[in-house]
Amino acid sequence: MSYFYLVPLASLVALGFAYYFFKNMKSQSEGTEKMKTIAQFVREGAMAYLKQQYKVVAIVFVVLSVIFAVMAYFGLQNNWVPFAFLTGGFFSGLAGFLGMKTATFASARTANAARTSLNKGLQIAFRSGAVMGLVVVGLALLDISLWYLILDHFVEGANEGHKLIMITTTMLTFGMGASTQALFARVGGGIYTKAADVGADLVGKVEAGIPEDDPRNPATIADNVGDNVGDVAGMGADLYESYCGSILSTAALGASAFIANPQMQQKAVFAPMIIAAIGVFLSILGIFLVRTKEDASIKTLMAALNKGINISAFLIAVLTFVILYLLGFENWLGLSFSVIAGLLAGIVIGKGTEYFTSHAYKPTQNIAKSAQTGPATVIISGIGSGMISTVIPVASIVIAILIAYLSAIGFDVKNMLTPENLGMGLYGIAIAAVGMLSTLGITLATDAYGPIADNAGGNAEMSGLEPEVRRRTDALDALGNTTAATGKGFAIGSAALTALALLASYMEEIRIGMLRLGDKIMELANGDTVEVAKASFLDFMNYFQVTLMNPKVIVGIFIGSMMAFLFCGLTMNAVGRAAQKMVEEVRRQFREIKGILTGEETPDYARCVAISTKGAQHEMLFPSLLAIAVPIITGILLGVAGVMGLLAGGLGSGFVLAIFMANSGGAWDNAKKFVEEGNLGGKGSSAHKATVVGDTVGDPFKDTSGPSLNILIKLMSMVSIVMAGLTVSWSLL
Amino acid sequence: MSYFYLVPLASLVALGFAYYFFKNMKSQSEGTEKMKTIAQFVREGAMAYLKQQYKVVAIVFVVLSVIFAVMAYFGLQNNWVPFAFLTGGFFSGLAGFLGMKTATFASARTANAARTSLNKGLQIAFRSGAVMGLVVVGLALLDISLWYLILDHFVEGANEGHKLIMITTTMLTFGMGASTQALFARVGGGIYTKAADVGADLVGKVEAGIPEDDPRNPATIADNVGDNVGDVAGMGADLYESYCGSILSTAALGASAFIANPQMQQKAVFAPMIIAAIGVFLSILGIFLVRTKEDASIKTLMAALNKGINISAFLIAVLTFVILYLLGFENWLGLSFSVIAGLLAGIVIGKGTEYFTSHAYKPTQNIAKSAQTGPATVIISGIGSGMISTVIPVASIVIAILIAYLSAIGFDVKNMLTPENLGMGLYGIAIAAVGMLSTLGITLATDAYGPIADNAGGNAEMSGLEPEVRRRTDALDALGNTTAATGKGFAIGSAALTALALLASYMEEIRIGMLRLGDKIMELANGDTVEVAKASFLDFMNYFQVTLMNPKVIVGIFIGSMMAFLFCGLTMNAVGRAAQKMVEEVRRQFREIKGILTGEETPDYARCVAISTKGAQHEMLFPSLLAIAVPIITGILLGVAGVMGLLAGGLGSGFVLAIFMANSGGAWDNAKKFVEEGNLGGKGSSAHKATVVGDTVGDPFKDTSGPSLNILIKLMSMVSIVMAGLTVSWSLL
Repeated sequence: MSYFYLVPLASLVALGFAYYFFKNMKSQSEGTEKMKTIAQFVREGAMAYLKQQYKVVAIVFVVLSVIFAVMAYFGLQNNWVPFAFLTGGFFSGLAGFLGMKTATFASARTANAARTSLNKGLQIAFRSGAVMGLVVVGLALLDISLWYLILDHFVEGANEGHKLIMITTTMLTFGMGASTQALFARVGGGIYTKAADVGADLVGKVEAGIPEDDPRNPATIADNVGDNVGDVAGMGADLYESYCGSILSTAALGASAFIANPQMQQKAVFAPMIIAAIGVFLSILGIFLVRTKEDASIKTLMAALNKGINISAFLIAVLTFVILYLLGFENWLGLSFSVIAGLLAGIVIGKGTEYFTSHAYKPTQNIAKSAQTGPATVIISGIGSGMISTVIPVASIVIAILIAYLSAIGFDVKNMLTPENLGMGLYGIAIAAVGMLSTLGITLATDAYGPIADNAGGNAEMSGLEPEVRRRTDALDALGNTTAATGKGFAIGSAALTALALLASYMEEIRIGMLRLGDKIMELANGDTVEVAKASFLDFMNYFQVTLMNPKVIVGIFIGSMMAFLFCGLTMNAVGRAAQKMVEEVRRQFREIKGILTGEETPDYARCVAISTKGAQHEMLFPSLLAIAVPIITGILLGVAGVMGLLAGGLGSGFVLAIFMANSGGAWDNAKKFVEEGNLGGKGSSAHKATVVGDTVGDPFKDTSGPSLNILIKLMSMVSIVMAGLTVSWSLL
Repeated sequence: MSYFYLVPLASLVALGFAYYFFKNMKSQSEGTEKMKTIAQFVREGAMAYLKQQYKVVAIVFVVLSVIFAVMAYFGLQNNWVPFAFLTGGFFSGLAGFLGMKTATFASARTANAARTSLNKGLQIAFRSGAVMGLVVVGLALLDISLWYLILDHFVEGANEGHKLIMITTTMLTFGMGASTQALFARVGGGIYTKAADVGADLVGKVEAGIPEDDPRNPATIADNVGDNVGDVAGMGADLYESYCGSILSTAALGASAFIANPQMQQKAVFAPMIIAAIGVFLSILGIFLVRTKEDASIKTLMAALNKGINISAFLIAVLTFVILYLLGFENWLGLSFSVIAGLLAGIVIGKGTEYFTSHAYKPTQNIAKSAQTGPATVIISGIGSGMISTVIPVASIVIAILIAYLSAIGFDVKNMLTPENLGMGLYGIAIAAVGMLSTLGITLATDAYGPIADNAGGNAEMSGLEPEVRRRTDALDALGNTTAATGKGFAIGSAALTALALLASYMEEIRIGMLRLGDKIMELANGDTVEVAKASFLDFMNYFQVTLMNPKVIVGIFIGSMMAFLFCGLTMNAVGRAAQKMVEEVRRQFREIKGILTGEETPDYARCVAISTKGAQHEMLFPSLLAIAVPIITGILLGVAGVMGLLAGGLGSGFVLAIFMANSGGAWDNAKKFVEEGNLGGKGSSAHKATVVGDTVGDPFKDTSGPSLNILIKLMSMVSIVMAGLTVSWSLL
């Protein structure tokens, strides 16, 4: 137990440093009066939106909590579930909120610092991003520690082993709270930001021919607000959810895989938390390592960031061996390699993303070249290239899964699927996801700083600062694009690794549900009987016939695959609709308020902010509720086999679709930048116009639909887990 | 056995009528000298391409046959496999070839007939399309009958039941031959036609502002050739494969599901063939019912086509009850409803496709409206709408699967998954696919007539016929667009229904492979032993642990999901690259040959034809070989569980991706037509330009990548089935 206290300690240290960095940033000057006013505008818009969003989400949370309370009353769930669910949602929202608050304070200060030097700008932006990174991991570990201590105190199990299973599966419900909040944040924020961005670009850049972030564009403020609510608050909630999800599902798997060995069981539950805690300390160290000389070039900056991340990652890898050895795992060596498999997969996915989205490489350059034959070929080649780019992440995850599994069971290939090896191997895969996310404190810092730099650029433009400042913030922003793509890779990669653990947790919940109903014995297909309390995962697979010859499973796979596409389709259309409204409003203002384009009159920014807010509120509800409803309905109609199929289908097609959309979007963005840097005719050429079309299409791909998919995959699993009691007691087929 | 002779009889009748319709069409006049010359040009280009393609494909077939021969030598397959494989490929190619030959003769004659009246044009185009429909079903039933008779004569099994299993699984290898040929035809033809189409449009319509099919456009002939090699020859090979695949896999399932009852087993093998045979007779009846008055409007034409199809479908449904009753099936009533479930699913998918792609309905109109804000929003809303449109086909197939299964087992829900019920239920699902495709003779006729009308329009334009003729052929073409979308729905829908049967055949081949290796007993996970010869599908699932908790299965699902995207990405990029080359060539000709645009000089059509030919040849090889290689490699690395995962993942994501791509593409095409009909500013407006971008992007979506996916899904299954012996003897994990 003593090691466990590292977890709350790491949490408090992380939150402490976050507060320190925040104060430090706040003490800087926000620059000129105009800069302050604009920052205030953006801040108010962002806060107003978040307030609106939380109101809607709060209603959803209240309704769901009541449903859980009713379920608990009827014995379909335990009494802790509604509360755990609420805290997960609360902390996930809080992580996003604090991150965004920091970002809205930091952008003008970054712009102001960039007036002095590039390096000063980097320091402020990066340290402010670090606030977000540390708040996310700090709150996650806080929530985890508190709930563990509370449940450990109150929950009573048949024995110690059973108790730990009850604790860890209950804690997963706060994962569901986090996922629900994250989905709303990603979808709502994503629609908001892209409606504003697409709308601003279509009329501003394309029709009126004014530059990005020009104060004459009525949608500019909305666009800058969008960066904060989508890319900061949305991403914070998203990664909070990924981080908690990987730790909690590993803990839950540890509790069931090691049930025969009570002493190790406790340690298997703690191990992912402790690795995460160590990761927090090392992330803070890494953050302090990010320093450059005053006259650093952008390449040096990138190297400085990478140095911080790499050192953290390397030290985590080394310390994993020590931790797992000290905890006394028999297979500490194998499990350590599982963690490293996850870490490496994350890095390879990041490199693959860079190759397919950075304009330093062929694929994106080819997309840019295809602009010479117009926008249609830009779209065709961007989609083609994005689809091909799925190979690297899929291969990385596939290899990581196999290595993590085999290494955890000591490469006992002949007995790969005995019940014991299956439990241990799945634990290996789950802990690989923890490894991948262990450096989140610092990777998220480099991730969150992108939108801060982006907003700093907006502020500089609108405040009419000298062009040199804008050039500097643009350089910082470009750096942020690459790190942002890496962050998305981590989120989706860890989702894929966590998925198997969630399937296992689902089985545990089914077991608990059966026991609650008094089903003590289950009869397998061949007539054998097994005690439900002692049945292995494979016995459950046999009992519920979760095989690929079962039409219920295949039907589930179809529905799951469809869900990923349907969800993307709904969010794409939502952006399209909201953007069209924005375009109409901007056109109206240009038409009716004559002095805008000459700079004599101020546009009505607030109306554009209101349009984005309303569009996002209105449009986020249906797809998000669908993600919650479909697993429940599938469970009621098709039972356990159908749900497992649904989750597997959603995982397979959602994972690949997410990568495709993120990478196509990223590549289009950079293909445009490639042309803007003076290639193929440069700004204003027909090739440039064609790449602008690609970039606009890519906006919802990479910032709305794509990054929501990893949450969708996990939320569907979480809902199934929480609703398992219902599926067990009622199901039609 | 006596019923069986209906099958060769139907085949000969179909081929006879095909010949009659062909002769009839040939006896019509081809029109003016200019029309003849142009038709000759197109004919030569198409034949030249097909010759090239068959050369490449022949090499692939020779290599694969040698591999199969070697496998047979080493006892990994039986000796018939290489020959069956070759005939499947040959007949599939022949079906495409004859259909294309007919189409290239028919287009000028259709244009010429359209000079007299719309109805005359319809008659020629439709009857020529019927040649293709009847050739496909005729050759399929011929191949099936011949092989059945040969194998029945030569194959010796341990007993009658075993013999039928040997026969039907061997016959599946000719399904693999058909799939391989079909994939090359679809991919090669698809790249050819879209490279030409996209290239012609980008320079001709967009840059030079000349109309479609204008003789001044150097890529016009290539574009018209493309319609024939892609939409006719490619589609013929594709649907030949779908048709054979559904019949053969149902027969194979019948052989294994009814193994305990030799008398019924034989009938279960014949049933799908006989239903197909009856379908052929009724299709011919339906074709003769398609008649209209001389002054018929386009609506009446559509009604006439629908009347033919609906009467055929209705009679098939009625006769199915009679056939299955006469064959003596105990559950004839239930199985008949399975067939009807398939038929209905096909119709609902068709209606859904129409709703999401016809500009008579909201979704496509909304895409058109989004053109007012430029090409980017056209792309966003087209992708969004296409993704949402996957709901209807997935729901139809899911419901059809469940109903076909449950109805076949007499709604014995409590014992849904006993080994007997599983066999019978899967047979029900498989025969539903046969039901869906039973009217192929006539549906394919309405499908193949689209490109004929399209080419007739091209011929009219290039020959400088009066605009009224072009208006008439355009009307015919528009009708063809809807029917073509329905045809694609049938192909992908039947692929989804056939998939489960193919998984079952895979298990049978694994059984045969194990027995060949001398594995007579298999030990299940719980220590029980089962005789391999008598093991049920579920025993195999248990033995190979093909459950969703097995990481090998999950890894397989990831790879399968990725394959669908990778394949699409490769073909999209192939079209993009080939189209760019075409654009450069057209631009070069406009630049260097001064008299082209004034009509004083003839462009160099042949060079454009050569570019498309070379591009298609070059680009089709890698994606097609990948589809063959990946299942083999997966089998060797991950064994049976990995392969099953691969097939399930490919099925889930491939099915949904295919619908998305086909429907987005269709909707963009019609959104453009909606604007061209005078809405939102009509031709030449900025909205029109935006929809042209959508249409161009949609070209490879709907005619290259999307329609290849159903073949990909089936080819991967077929390869796995044929290579099962290899997977059983060697596999790493």
